[in-house]
Amino acid sequence: MRGSRPRVKPLDGHGHAHNPSDYDAEQEGLLANGYSTGPIPSPFPQKGKGPAYEEGGVIDWQREEAAERERKRILASHRGFRGLTARLADTGSMWLVIILTGLGIGTAGAWLDVLVRWLGDLRDGRCAYGFFYNQVMCCSGLDPGELCYEWQTWSEYLNIRWILVQSLLQSSVYILLAVVFAGSAAALVKFYAPYAFHTGIPEIKAILSGYVLDSFLSPWTLLIKALGLALAVASGLSLGKEGPLVHVSCCLALLLSKMFKQIHRNEARKRKMLGAAAVAGVSVAFGSPLGGVLFGLEELDTFTGGTDVMWRGFVTSVIAAMALQYIDPFGTSKLVLFQVQITDETTVWRAFELIPWLFLSVLGGFLGSLLIKLNARIAVYRRNSMLNDWPTIEVVSVSAITAAVCYLVVFLRVQSSELVANLFMECDPIRGDWHGLCNATAIWANVFLLILTAGTKLVFTAWTFGMMIPAGIFLPTIAIGACLGRAVGLITQGLHRAYPHAWIFWSCPPEPNARCISPGFYAVIGASAMLGGVTRMTVSLVVILFELTGALSHVLPIMISVMVSKWVGDYFGKEGIYSIWIAMRAYPWLPPSEFRDKGETAADVMKPAADLVVIAEDTEGGCELEDVDRVVRMYRFHGFPVVCGETLVGYATRENLRAALDPLVLEDVASRRGRKCTFVPRPVELESESELVDLSDVLEDAVLQMRPEMPLELIVSTFQKLNLRHILFSREGILCGMVTKTDVVRLFTAKFPYTSALSSKSL
Amino acid sequence: MRGSRPRVKPLDGHGHAHNPSDYDAEQEGLLANGYSTGPIPSPFPQKGKGPAYEEGGVIDWQREEAAERERKRILASHRGFRGLTARLADTGSMWLVIILTGLGIGTAGAWLDVLVRWLGDLRDGRCAYGFFYNQVMCCSGLDPGELCYEWQTWSEYLNIRWILVQSLLQSSVYILLAVVFAGSAAALVKFYAPYAFHTGIPEIKAILSGYVLDSFLSPWTLLIKALGLALAVASGLSLGKEGPLVHVSCCLALLLSKMFKQIHRNEARKRKMLGAAAVAGVSVAFGSPLGGVLFGLEELDTFTGGTDVMWRGFVTSVIAAMALQYIDPFGTSKLVLFQVQITDETTVWRAFELIPWLFLSVLGGFLGSLLIKLNARIAVYRRNSMLNDWPTIEVVSVSAITAAVCYLVVFLRVQSSELVANLFMECDPIRGDWHGLCNATAIWANVFLLILTAGTKLVFTAWTFGMMIPAGIFLPTIAIGACLGRAVGLITQGLHRAYPHAWIFWSCPPEPNARCISPGFYAVIGASAMLGGVTRMTVSLVVILFELTGALSHVLPIMISVMVSKWVGDYFGKEGIYSIWIAMRAYPWLPPSEFRDKGETAADVMKPAADLVVIAEDTEGGCELEDVDRVVRMYRFHGFPVVCGETLVGYATRENLRAALDPLVLEDVASRRGRKCTFVPRPVELESESELVDLSDVLEDAVLQMRPEMPLELIVSTFQKLNLRHILFSREGILCGMVTKTDVVRLFTAKFPYTSALSSKSL
Repeated sequence: MRGSRPRVKPLDGHGHAHNPSDYDAEQEGLLANGYSTGPIPSPFPQKGKGPAYEEGGVIDWQREEAAERERKRILASHRGFRGLTARLADTGSMWLVIILTGLGIGTAGAWLDVLVRWLGDLRDGRCAYGFFYNQVMCCSGLDPGELCYEWQTWSEYLNIRWILVQSLLQSSVYILLAVVFAGSAAALVKFYAPYAFHTGIPEIKAILSGYVLDSFLSPWTLLIKALGLALAVASGLSLGKEGPLVHVSCCLALLLSKMFKQIHRNEARKRKMLGAAAVAGVSVAFGSPLGGVLFGLEELDTFTGGTDVMWRGFVTSVIAAMALQYIDPFGTSKLVLFQVQITDETTVWRAFELIPWLFLSVLGGFLGSLLIKLNARIAVYRRNSMLNDWPTIEVVSVSAITAAVCYLVVFLRVQSSELVANLFMECDPIRGDWHGLCNATAIWANVFLLILTAGTKLVFTAWTFGMMIPAGIFLPTIAIGACLGRAVGLITQGLHRAYPHAWIFWSCPPEPNARCISPGFYAVIGASAMLGGVTRMTVSLVVILFELTGALSHVLPIMISVMVSKWVGDYFGKEGIYSIWIAMRAYPWLPPSEFRDKGETAADVMKPAADLVVIAEDTEGGCELEDVDRVVRMYRFHGFPVVCGETLVGYATRENLRAALDPLVLEDVASRRGRKCTFVPRPVELESESELVDLSDVLEDAVLQMRPEMPLELIVSTFQKLNLRHILFSREGILCGMVTKTDVVRLFTAKFPYTSALSSKSL
Repeated sequence: MRGSRPRVKPLDGHGHAHNPSDYDAEQEGLLANGYSTGPIPSPFPQKGKGPAYEEGGVIDWQREEAAERERKRILASHRGFRGLTARLADTGSMWLVIILTGLGIGTAGAWLDVLVRWLGDLRDGRCAYGFFYNQVMCCSGLDPGELCYEWQTWSEYLNIRWILVQSLLQSSVYILLAVVFAGSAAALVKFYAPYAFHTGIPEIKAILSGYVLDSFLSPWTLLIKALGLALAVASGLSLGKEGPLVHVSCCLALLLSKMFKQIHRNEARKRKMLGAAAVAGVSVAFGSPLGGVLFGLEELDTFTGGTDVMWRGFVTSVIAAMALQYIDPFGTSKLVLFQVQITDETTVWRAFELIPWLFLSVLGGFLGSLLIKLNARIAVYRRNSMLNDWPTIEVVSVSAITAAVCYLVVFLRVQSSELVANLFMECDPIRGDWHGLCNATAIWANVFLLILTAGTKLVFTAWTFGMMIPAGIFLPTIAIGACLGRAVGLITQGLHRAYPHAWIFWSCPPEPNARCISPGFYAVIGASAMLGGVTRMTVSLVVILFELTGALSHVLPIMISVMVSKWVGDYFGKEGIYSIWIAMRAYPWLPPSEFRDKGETAADVMKPAADLVVIAEDTEGGCELEDVDRVVRMYRFHGFPVVCGETLVGYATRENLRAALDPLVLEDVASRRGRKCTFVPRPVELESESELVDLSDVLEDAVLQMRPEMPLELIVSTFQKLNLRHILFSREGILCGMVTKTDVVRLFTAKFPYTSALSSKSL
């Protein structure tokens, strides 16, 4: 046995009967991750149930897929009726989970909307004829223009006359309920399911790429995240429901897949299923079935799982959208959330409009980066300050401040989704003027209000995203962008009205008072630019945005704004907000982006052979069975390279070694002493001299070997594309070293200042 | 030197000064491909210009990317102002090519539309005040309902009174011009650019994945394909312009990239550029910038090139669409080609409509498969019959028959794009009745006509797609689907009118004569189903279709129909029409679809070490320089594995070996005789005894080694994901064999009956 220097301090509290505390987590990429308040997960959640990956480890895709292949082969070998039904049941179980997940998340999304709307309206008042009606349902059935007397504000309900008391009462109820909602969400999260905090997308990205974090998707998390999300959104905090819905969808899929052990037990298959579920989550969150599929493709990188994953995601997404449309929570029988009215005047856009739009795109890219940086700093500050110990207090205070500030500004007081819907809408005399937004004489007041709203939301969002509460970043980002966009649109419109004959407006219709600029669409552009800056998504963002708004004729400006804002944002830092959070939490996730080396080769990053724990046998006589057993018991690595002399023979996982050794070492000490084993099948004459136990079946089939001269860039792209766990390096057959996924992830995150800032302290 | 058994007969006519005719094309995947009439390409198109790949070979992505990396590194090492400008020029050149390609293809696409429209209208008549106006431009400026006297049919122009002579003249001109257009297109293709025939998408898929076929993208091909395409479309043959436009776009990008040697000389970089150009081609063809990007992702598989390829495609696509919109060939200032009118009545669809839509989807999947099968059979028949020698005659006869038949049926007589636009349109009293399609009393006549049109088009398309003429499959497929869809829509509408109170129609508005069914949208569903069946695309198809029609509120039914039609189609055969053509032409292209082995391992497909031509040196003394030189001269393989004793040392390309050997072997015979070389750097004391030339630098850095026990499925997916050329297999350091891309491609195509049916005969 050669070199064995443990280099990482052991994870505390994870002892296991088989191994003493002396082991090394780094050889195979077991990273020390954790949450400040999360329960310490059991290291062997699947004990005795097949491949047991430890929480916080990385799955071995090659191995999982081999297992799946083996299962399929056995299934295909069954003959006759029994075989047929077994195969049908196998395929059927997968599709059943997909269909149920789609239906489930569609339903959950719809009811969540209903709940949020009711809770949100409760902060304002109540319905006279039924406590459980929200304002829209309470006032339905009225003609346009008719006043709604059924909906009573609290002061009307309590019959208060004095205006001062009215406002005091209304604002107190507004703030009080915000605090109660947010506080109970935080308490639920803290005490029942700490993993239910935040958006969940960084974790899902890591899990889909192979990270093991089963407790993140537990039934408790499902329940708390859904409930907490409704409370959090209703509390008026600056957060959205989109990301958390993806998390809820994944929890649901995992819960459903537990019905079928063939899905649940195979980690690769489970992840492919989760990918489809995540897609459905986006589909429901935005009412955008196609955008969901593309989100899965671009952001969750589910495409590496093969075309069938995309296809399943497509189906799940369709089913979820159908369920949502069937339940129809908004009573509009439309999926589209924020409909932009495309009238004949607005379908045409003019070349000069590119100037304000480009300005918006640059602004969006810059503010997006700013939001990311601010959010990361606040998150690190939170972790290192006393706030870390009082998460519920933080949530309560922030929600109180948010509610107090928001009550003062009319655009902030309403729910974000209502604000965005109105900002996207063009002014229309029939529909009425939403809070004076269409008042042509109050342009500057409106612009000031909109910029104030955007600025306030930016700060609140940077703080809120990361508190101990379910929170998505999409909707607040859209709201910030929409405010800025509408402001720029109003200014442009004002300029046009003031100087209708200026040369720049020559392409506008010549009639006085003709409509030329559509400020509502400027809000859409602003939202796309801001989203581009924060998430750095491209294609999926465009699809989501124009499924969201129906602005098909304007797909080109949306594309341009996303493009420019991504360029500007990339100038300030390549990573989107989810990647930043992944890096801060140090999940073993490989960004799909290209890596450029500076001439380094594998030799520069690999752990050299001398530092590896290997199982070594003599070229002549094999190796002692007891030595192998000792190595396997002593180290908790995922596996060990096997060498014969110095020649690399292969790689054996600890689990397979234990399975092979356990029956052998059960024999009495005397008989096993001096017994030898080999991993290299030898000719008979050699074996006859002493009884060698042949362990060559234990070696993994799917092991990649490369030359240490391999350029680092190619190593990285091999890891990215094949989803590998490790690569062995050899020169003329002799083992030189090993590179694991962790080493490769470190290459990406090393230069980022906040890497691991949120991960190291807790465990 | 070990085992050397040439197994494939040499390619004739490709001799080269360096190598005698005794070589073997199969070791590294040089496939015998070709066209029946194509000029025999020079085997060394880039002689002396760096990496020379032979036409018909496969590029080595790893090597090309290493070269690019090296170039970038050198560029980055330049200091000061000169370095900065060099780097800026490098990035700038790439973006310049992208921008120019986008602008170019946008312009080309627009002018092609204008040309086609004019040529097509010329078959009917001429404009009184200007020969070069088409009918729409000639009659523009009229009020709705006003008759257009400026456009004269030929009989009006020649002032013919007798109706019989009129019809005779009109039909003769119609047929004659069809024959003239189609015949000249075929002649152009045959004599100037044989590669300009067909759609081009199969070849582009192969080229993007690494196939070398430079003459396919020559400037001549560009010119002939564009011109021939206009003639072919105008001739009224059953073909579309979509696929060929992608080809034109790629030709253009290659032509432009020739300005910059750093793009043109690197095969990997060139291909990434071509990927972006292809995306722009789709973007222009459909007026669907987003659909273009997704087409690139899903069908052309450009995503394997990394996220930056998608991003560049996105940008190119936007620029191309902007150019198209700026030129505005249709005078509508809209990108959308076939606008579906979304009125308040049509935004809502009812659950019972799923029944006819599902029927259409199943029909589309079935007919799509039928079309593929029919087309493949006709292509094979054409190749093996005398038609192979008379391609122009075939085109002329088919166009005459097509024109004669089409003149008789009113829906067939107009251009496909006009037919589709009208089928997608809802009936509207203001717009008038297009050829009686909206006549409620003639439902059955219309249904009969539509089914007749669909059937005729199906047969004609199956024959036309593959003739010696530029031809796309998209538009005819859409037309067939739209006819069937409209027919089903008319039937459903008829049923509703006849039985408005039947229980199935309970969700329709209760008023008599209320509109409930929109037959125009049924046509969209039919088109999606048919396209799904023929191309087997999913997400990109949905995006293209709803960018094409603007039917955003109906994205869900479109998704469902694509989904079902793909399922049905896959039942009859997994491959789409492009894959079938790739297989028939035996291009070395790996489908991205999943491969399932039946328990085979690499050992079952690899070429065993004994059959490989290897460069072998002794463990002690290296090998004779002359022996290495002889091997390199004798075999035209891309490279050779190098072994020391039996241990695998690495892989050396023939090109690098020649570069290293040529200076050495130029010395006089006496001094080089007995001189030895080695690929293994040895300790000094060994080298002193005789002067060993160290060739270890010649070895490729990026070589993958695996165990022969590796499951075949994993081998295939490694090839797919890493775009590899070969993998070496070793056991305990000893070379066991090699698998090349060709071997892997053969695994996919082996079971398909027409594999290589169009490739083996010509060369």
